[in-house]
Amino acid sequence: MSLDRHDPEGAIAEAAKAYSNWGRWGEDDVLGTLNFLDEAKRREGAALVRRGVSFSLSQRFDMNGPQKGWRRRTNPVHTMLDTGTDAALGNQGFPHGIGGADDVIAMPLQCSTQWDGLGHIFDHGKAWNGRDAEKVVTSAGDLVTGIEHMAPYVAGRGVLLDVARAIGDDDGEPELPDGFAITAEHLTATAEAHGVSVGRGDIVLVRTGRLARARRDGWGDYAGGDAPGLSFTTAGWLHRTEIAAIATDTWGFEVRPNEFDHAFQPLHQIVIPNMGLLIGEMWDLDALAADCADDGVYEFWLTAAPLPITGAVGSPVNPVAVK
Amino acid sequence: MSLDRHDPEGAIAEAAKAYSNWGRWGEDDVLGTLNFLDEAKRREGAALVRRGVSFSLSQRFDMNGPQKGWRRRTNPVHTMLDTGTDAALGNQGFPHGIGGADDVIAMPLQCSTQWDGLGHIFDHGKAWNGRDAEKVVTSAGDLVTGIEHMAPYVAGRGVLLDVARAIGDDDGEPELPDGFAITAEHLTATAEAHGVSVGRGDIVLVRTGRLARARRDGWGDYAGGDAPGLSFTTAGWLHRTEIAAIATDTWGFEVRPNEFDHAFQPLHQIVIPNMGLLIGEMWDLDALAADCADDGVYEFWLTAAPLPITGAVGSPVNPVAVK
Amino acid sequence: MSLDRHDPEGAIAEAAKAYSNWGRWGEDDVLGTLNFLDEAKRREGAALVRRGVSFSLSQRFDMNGPQKGWRRRTNPVHTMLDTGTDAALGNQGFPHGIGGADDVIAMPLQCSTQWDGLGHIFDHGKAWNGRDAEKVVTSAGDLVTGIEHMAPYVAGRGVLLDVARAIGDDDGEPELPDGFAITAEHLTATAEAHGVSVGRGDIVLVRTGRLARARRDGWGDYAGGDAPGLSFTTAGWLHRTEIAAIATDTWGFEVRPNEFDHAFQPLHQIVIPNMGLLIGEMWDLDALAADCADDGVYEFWLTAAPLPITGAVGSPVNPVAVK
Amino acid sequence: MSLDRHDPEGAIAEAAKAYSNWGRWGEDDVLGTLNFLDEAKRREGAALVRRGVSFSLSQRFDMNGPQKGWRRRTNPVHTMLDTGTDAALGNQGFPHGIGGADDVIAMPLQCSTQWDGLGHIFDHGKAWNGRDAEKVVTSAGDLVTGIEHMAPYVAGRGVLLDVARAIGDDDGEPELPDGFAITAEHLTATAEAHGVSVGRGDIVLVRTGRLARARRDGWGDYAGGDAPGLSFTTAGWLHRTEIAAIATDTWGFEVRPNEFDHAFQPLHQIVIPNMGLLIGEMWDLDALAADCADDGVYEFWLTAAPLPITGAVGSPVNPVAVK
Repeated sequence: MSLDRHDPEGAIAEAAKAYSNWGRWGEDDVLGTLNFLDEAKRREGAALVRRGVSFSLSQRFDMNGPQKGWRRRTNPVHTMLDTGTDAALGNQGFPHGIGGADDVIAMPLQCSTQWDGLGHIFDHGKAWNGRDAEKVVTSAGDLVTGIEHMAPYVAGRGVLLDVARAIGDDDGEPELPDGFAITAEHLTATAEAHGVSVGRGDIVLVRTGRLARARRDGWGDYAGGDAPGLSFTTAGWLHRTEIAAIATDTWGFEVRPNEFDHAFQPLHQIVIPNMGLLIGEMWDLDALAADCADDGVYEFWLTAAPLPITGAVGSPVNPVAVK
Repeated sequence: MSLDRHDPEGAIAEAAKAYSNWGRWGEDDVLGTLNFLDEAKRREGAALVRRGVSFSLSQRFDMNGPQKGWRRRTNPVHTMLDTGTDAALGNQGFPHGIGGADDVIAMPLQCSTQWDGLGHIFDHGKAWNGRDAEKVVTSAGDLVTGIEHMAPYVAGRGVLLDVARAIGDDDGEPELPDGFAITAEHLTATAEAHGVSVGRGDIVLVRTGRLARARRDGWGDYAGGDAPGLSFTTAGWLHRTEIAAIATDTWGFEVRPNEFDHAFQPLHQIVIPNMGLLIGEMWDLDALAADCADDGVYEFWLTAAPLPITGAVGSPVNPVAVK
Repeated sequence: MSLDRHDPEGAIAEAAKAYSNWGRWGEDDVLGTLNFLDEAKRREGAALVRRGVSFSLSQRFDMNGPQKGWRRRTNPVHTMLDTGTDAALGNQGFPHGIGGADDVIAMPLQCSTQWDGLGHIFDHGKAWNGRDAEKVVTSAGDLVTGIEHMAPYVAGRGVLLDVARAIGDDDGEPELPDGFAITAEHLTATAEAHGVSVGRGDIVLVRTGRLARARRDGWGDYAGGDAPGLSFTTAGWLHRTEIAAIATDTWGFEVRPNEFDHAFQPLHQIVIPNMGLLIGEMWDLDALAADCADDGVYEFWLTAAPLPITGAVGSPVNPVAVK
Repeated sequence: MSLDRHDPEGAIAEAAKAYSNWGRWGEDDVLGTLNFLDEAKRREGAALVRRGVSFSLSQRFDMNGPQKGWRRRTNPVHTMLDTGTDAALGNQGFPHGIGGADDVIAMPLQCSTQWDGLGHIFDHGKAWNGRDAEKVVTSAGDLVTGIEHMAPYVAGRGVLLDVARAIGDDDGEPELPDGFAITAEHLTATAEAHGVSVGRGDIVLVRTGRLARARRDGWGDYAGGDAPGLSFTTAGWLHRTEIAAIATDTWGFEVRPNEFDHAFQPLHQIVIPNMGLLIGEMWDLDALAADCADDGVYEFWLTAAPLPITGAVGSPVNPVAVK
């Protein structure tokens, strides 16, 4: 698939039509491609637990995160309702020497390691499965496809495609440069290099090395700035492979700047409302990737359970991979 | 163990001494009994995935939750930064027909289905492992044992002890009455009735039926009010079995009212700061319990990954059990 | 004006037409009746400062407020970022013995003593001055009539109409019963009894005694429940007097239950989007009223400056009256 | 008073002793220098309303504010609970054509135009009036001197000292350079140039021009960065004049960098806990200053009522000056 940089509308319309899953799971569907992740796939995934070692794929949630206020997205603000200092000083009024600490958080659901819910993106006013966006996500939240519906299901076989390591420059760090558009060919070549297959119901993790760079050099423009990421042209691969979900170690999943002259996240516009694909962003894949490079095993059991926040269009998540 | 209702201080001091794990995993430990959950246990747990069916053990996070404002604990307030109505009306300013919805949450970390972190409770000014509470949890959060340290590890073998079903009145619903103190004998008898063992490194889920009652009859005084729960006398069992974690379907884990004349959550005071035990509260065990009653299998693979909120003394969690 | 209890639509349409101020201050107007409060009125108001005594007309903002969660309206949640306990214990890392405390608040702007902004209510999709509601208040806030535009102006002559004292039952407390509909005649008679005039540019405060009752008997159903308040039939008086603003000591300004069989705040629907009237709710008028009863002076200088929160459809406020 | 740049501890101790007001208003005092603002002063202030023109001295509260996350201070996050788009699309479920918009804010109380409460700063563990900091400000807030106590009182005579205009470089904008330490001599000379007196009970506004510069050039390091401001040596003047309150158009009131080699806000340490002085920061004095330069009148009626947030150590405020 080649891109006409000057015609995002045309390319989007064509891809939306070609890769639509509307109606595939019935008109009432609220799960999208998560339907591909079935019980057989879970059995297959659980069998990948060989050593019993586990990895968190989440960034830490705190004020040292990537957000800078764009569209009111801040970093998480965590405050205490009670503390150990108060307990030690006897300020709490509890009996028999018990003391306690409580806390509160205020945060955008899109602030750090997250899933994008099916109500997160619309295509010309249409949400997932062809529903009218204004009937789906109001000020009261996502009334139809809220992330809570996915709560039990996001556990299965995970596959890491460490594109940075497989495709990246041999010199230095395994990191793709900003603006690097990962194509279907890159994904296929990486899977081949890793000796791993990708197919129906899998949860695919694509590592670009962008977070490692941000961690080393500072956040800079990471949140929304230039980054490697999936090419718009991977839409077909994402559709054809019938994967259940995909996540990257970048702010925005797809390559930044986007591949059209005047565009904003065009691949999102295909894969969320039209394909119903579950997308994860800002995952921390580095520790897992180092382990995979060590033992040569790029598949594992993965649980990445969104918080069932009623009506949410996304959720922070602490994905846990077990090998 | 019998209780002197008039001497919480004495009973607590005695139990704290008898069941302390201070120093057991070194002076720098930040994981407590989660140390019992090792790689072998994870392999054992993963082998329990036989059918591939998965269950979320989380309540939904929304304003219809149990909180009523006690100690500034509110239900989660979820608001939208962008909506489908705005997208449909062309208010968002994005190109080529893309629209989006974002959201924000403000919530106490103790508002719904949760883990209590090791910094959540103190005993006479001492936090887990004998540290001074005022050095551990300040206004900046838990500087030592923040829940983020547990992020990769809470995945292993889960065991359901449906005490309500095994011990409860045969008439009507499988629910224990408020004020019912679950003893070690009840736990043992339940495990026996279920044909399941409990041991080192397990994550034990104790169902009382209290949430089912709240769901049917309304929240009422559920949050902090009367409820069935673990007896103070189970401290020895909790220590002896060397379980990694335990969770209940109640607001407060232990029986309410508490078993001493003037007391507040005395079992917490033993098991969190002294034993280093990971405790979960307000879990929704009903769907899982119904399935276990059906197939007679009370053990499963369980992932219950806290959000790695830096310095948090607890975390909302969506535990996922797979059988 | 008599009410047909069965025809809210008809009554609202009639009143909306009769009392509309659309276009009165030009098509770009963002101030509504606040335009009536001019410099001459401010000079008149300032001249009312005779003793120099000042009164706050605000409830305290805390968790002991009236909100119970309806439409996600909670009481204010105030948490500390730094405390004196941390300062005393040396946790803060500042030099030369300085210590500090900081704090955070999360609250609905409609949670307590407040102004309703002009973007708070719509009539059949129309906002103040005839604008389309969907062009005025989006997820980004009120793009046209945000409360910030009123920031400099809400200072002038205040008049207290203590209807509860002037009209209420002689026995017992000066409080009107729930469901009591205050009419134009009641307002006029009260002003007469107080020996005070009401006219163009004034800020009128109407005391019903409802807050005093809530303070004495508990909040109960105060927030949204039954209460005395202005009758729908006062719309003409509110228009004719050309007052700049009006506030009550009740949750909802108008009488509850509302006067139509099936209705929700019909007077709001007239006075905010059609008349452009600035409305205050949940003001605490009791201390001021006691003073006015003492000295017989029911007019004063009043400053009630909303916080200029950009795009807000309302604002918490601490009104200060000086006599 | 000359400063030994190498001895902040000594200078602070000396000034704390020299300018302490502890006990001046009794041991139960919660108002500090606000006690100076009496009824006579309010009568004097009200008499300054000659034209009736009013000014808001507040910045707008939104994401375009100065905060950058230091010590978890963010800009205000304002979100909508209901919108006009939802009303227009019929999503709200209200009868007879009424629609509504509600909103929520989450913000540090120190995020923008504000008063510092008396519990905001401590000196060697002591809060205002000699109280132990740990007894005054706990995780539950300021239990003694919360800003709510000041709610009725902050209304009186305001005086603008436009130091930037009176003292600053004649060339170009009336702005003092960063690092410029305003001394008592500067304050006195400015008052003289303006033909205005400063004395007991006044609320003094000091304009440096720093906000005008930030507005023109961008926030940059405004919040906590270099700025003009009061010299540590003004402590005596602040004490001697017996002013009720003082506010500046800067983030931090005092000159930045601070005047000692290793220091953090040493003047705060004198004036808040020792003197009990009410301090305002980040006020927008520019429109008022332009008017004062025009008409030559630098005194006015000023109401700057903090929100009575129970236990708050500060409050956002919309100060309104009337001339």
